[in-house]
Amino acid sequence: MQSFDYCNRTKIIFGKGTVRRTGAECALISRRILLLHSGGHVVKSGLLDVIKETLEANDVSYIELSGVKPNPLLSKVREGITIARENNLSLVLAVGGGSVIDTAKAIALGAVYDGDVWDFYDHKREPENALNVATVVTIPAAGSENSIGSVITNEEGPWKQSVDSELIRPVFSILDPVLTYSLPDYQTACGITDIFAHIAERYFTRERHAELSDEFCEGAMRTVIRNGRKILSGSRDDYYARSEIMWASTIAHNNLLSSGRIGDWGSHMIEHQLSAFYDIAHGAGLAIIMPAWMQYVLETDKTEETVLMFAKFAKKVWGVDGAYYDAYQAAKEGIFRFKNFLRSIGMPTSFKDAGIGTDKIDAMVAEVVKFGSVGHYIELKSEDVRKIYDIASSL
Amino acid sequence: MQSFDYCNRTKIIFGKGTVRRTGAECALISRRILLLHSGGHVVKSGLLDVIKETLEANDVSYIELSGVKPNPLLSKVREGITIARENNLSLVLAVGGGSVIDTAKAIALGAVYDGDVWDFYDHKREPENALNVATVVTIPAAGSENSIGSVITNEEGPWKQSVDSELIRPVFSILDPVLTYSLPDYQTACGITDIFAHIAERYFTRERHAELSDEFCEGAMRTVIRNGRKILSGSRDDYYARSEIMWASTIAHNNLLSSGRIGDWGSHMIEHQLSAFYDIAHGAGLAIIMPAWMQYVLETDKTEETVLMFAKFAKKVWGVDGAYYDAYQAAKEGIFRFKNFLRSIGMPTSFKDAGIGTDKIDAMVAEVVKFGSVGHYIELKSEDVRKIYDIASSL
Repeated sequence: MQSFDYCNRTKIIFGKGTVRRTGAECALISRRILLLHSGGHVVKSGLLDVIKETLEANDVSYIELSGVKPNPLLSKVREGITIARENNLSLVLAVGGGSVIDTAKAIALGAVYDGDVWDFYDHKREPENALNVATVVTIPAAGSENSIGSVITNEEGPWKQSVDSELIRPVFSILDPVLTYSLPDYQTACGITDIFAHIAERYFTRERHAELSDEFCEGAMRTVIRNGRKILSGSRDDYYARSEIMWASTIAHNNLLSSGRIGDWGSHMIEHQLSAFYDIAHGAGLAIIMPAWMQYVLETDKTEETVLMFAKFAKKVWGVDGAYYDAYQAAKEGIFRFKNFLRSIGMPTSFKDAGIGTDKIDAMVAEVVKFGSVGHYIELKSEDVRKIYDIASSL
Repeated sequence: MQSFDYCNRTKIIFGKGTVRRTGAECALISRRILLLHSGGHVVKSGLLDVIKETLEANDVSYIELSGVKPNPLLSKVREGITIARENNLSLVLAVGGGSVIDTAKAIALGAVYDGDVWDFYDHKREPENALNVATVVTIPAAGSENSIGSVITNEEGPWKQSVDSELIRPVFSILDPVLTYSLPDYQTACGITDIFAHIAERYFTRERHAELSDEFCEGAMRTVIRNGRKILSGSRDDYYARSEIMWASTIAHNNLLSSGRIGDWGSHMIEHQLSAFYDIAHGAGLAIIMPAWMQYVLETDKTEETVLMFAKFAKKVWGVDGAYYDAYQAAKEGIFRFKNFLRSIGMPTSFKDAGIGTDKIDAMVAEVVKFGSVGHYIELKSEDVRKIYDIASSL
């Protein structure tokens, strides 16, 4: 087990009806807030009205900014920074999923920085200060509600880059599973894929001695599979299944499951460019890339360590019975069942499924390795990244 | 899944050699600290010298108080309160296990309170303020390094009572598994029992929909069993096994595993009086009480819900194969294996094993139900508590 520091100060407020606590929780921190959302469903569903009501009831004044898009754009971040500065706001409240939350985090960084906020994403500067961020989560997927990360797309490239800073970990996050009943199935499935990927990225590690984290990762993946299937086979309003997915989403990406281990993250780096170049959902991109990554790693690095790692994944997560398979066959069967699961919940698992061509592979490869090789389990250089795109596009 | 708030601000610093960070971490909070320990091994081993060195190197002045005993006493708390007040100290650094940490928490509450600190333990007052508490853990067991609880024995009774307050959750806790190599086997086993019990108390719940927490509890119990056996079958200096136990100890009692569920805690309430009256180790007391509680609940409440809960515990935690047992038999087999495990690591599982008589049962029962019935899975009144003591003393 590797040494680690762990500290997670976000206050999680979980359960039916907790959205009504938004105003009171904000008032503990700030009376002047930026209310950030995507527009659309949060407005039509009446959710935003409920939130505004609780803000007003707690004497919290707000300025609204809407129109955040999936794969959130730097231009919207700049808009928010200007508003936050001009109005002297001290808290950015994100109502939405990962895109809205990541935009809120970027605004929080940029509003108190003299230079260009892209400096942080371009790794030219380290953040030293930020406004407070808080969230009301409507899409369980990114886990940004309890993480230190933010991913933004600079449309001038397109360049999709991320920043990690303890300064932008939300002060509080409200998780009301009822808000997720009305998600379209496709979006639910993208979220489930993203959650699963966050756990799997941490699970695939060279660290052989992190048993408690292994157990937690395996248990969390099983929980996501069981409850994801339940929701997407018709139980859209199942409070308990929605609750498990929502809680798993937060746990998957708040770094608890990284304790004592270094995860891989290659698939995420490779996917980010896919969704930046083709504007597909991040979860859908992961459904295409992650099985291709697994297939590539298993076929390229045929060491006992790697075969046993995937065989363990197959056994513990997918129930592949070790009595009927040798380790290599079990490893392959696990990847096969993972892909089958993704297809069963309506995800694409190839470029073709997603209607994507191969013409931009060169440009994507260049962006993936822009700051050097990616991935920790095996180090992926540009030729490896290309081969993974090739696997994903040849299926 | 029940609604919940979760916020845990303790900074966990985990790994080999982290004890050398003590002074620097203290300096971020306070320059005038109370250095609290039990004396004995922490002094002889040279650990205290290392800590003092790091304090001095970081210009942190300290006043030392030693002599904290297992089942820590109110008199020592009062001594610490006087020292903290007279010297205007603002941080209590506990170097030790649960007894030292719980004493530090009590001192932190009492030093800033005009009345008698026992008021908080006697539930006459709610804490409103406290000094900061930090810890260097030497015994993985109580989980107090990341919890809001403190248990103190008032020797005038004896009355053993607890207080819970977010104010006394440690600011930081240093977990260096190497410090635990030199623990006597009996103390290691008591710790393992306490850790297991903290998970089991949370696991036994009426909440049927807390799957992720179920998975985490089961995974944590399996991890404790595997690594506990490893250490106590000769691998005392196995860094990885010691690490798993130390991390599990913290996770077991920081309330993450309570998310969405209400645990039982009857066994803890019943045990507290056993160790208060007979001054045995808390872990040893739990080894006696917890299997008796399970046997009593299974035999008294023969509902399908209860049988299935214990059958699940048997299958998931103890590997009882459902194909060869009906649910009730499986439930009994699980309890049997739990007791066998406790015996295999050298724990007593009856009054007789611990050399305890039955003469004080009346007095203990009265103390257990002093504030009303105990336990959430089933409510235990005085006659139930007596029957559990009877089972434990008849074996």
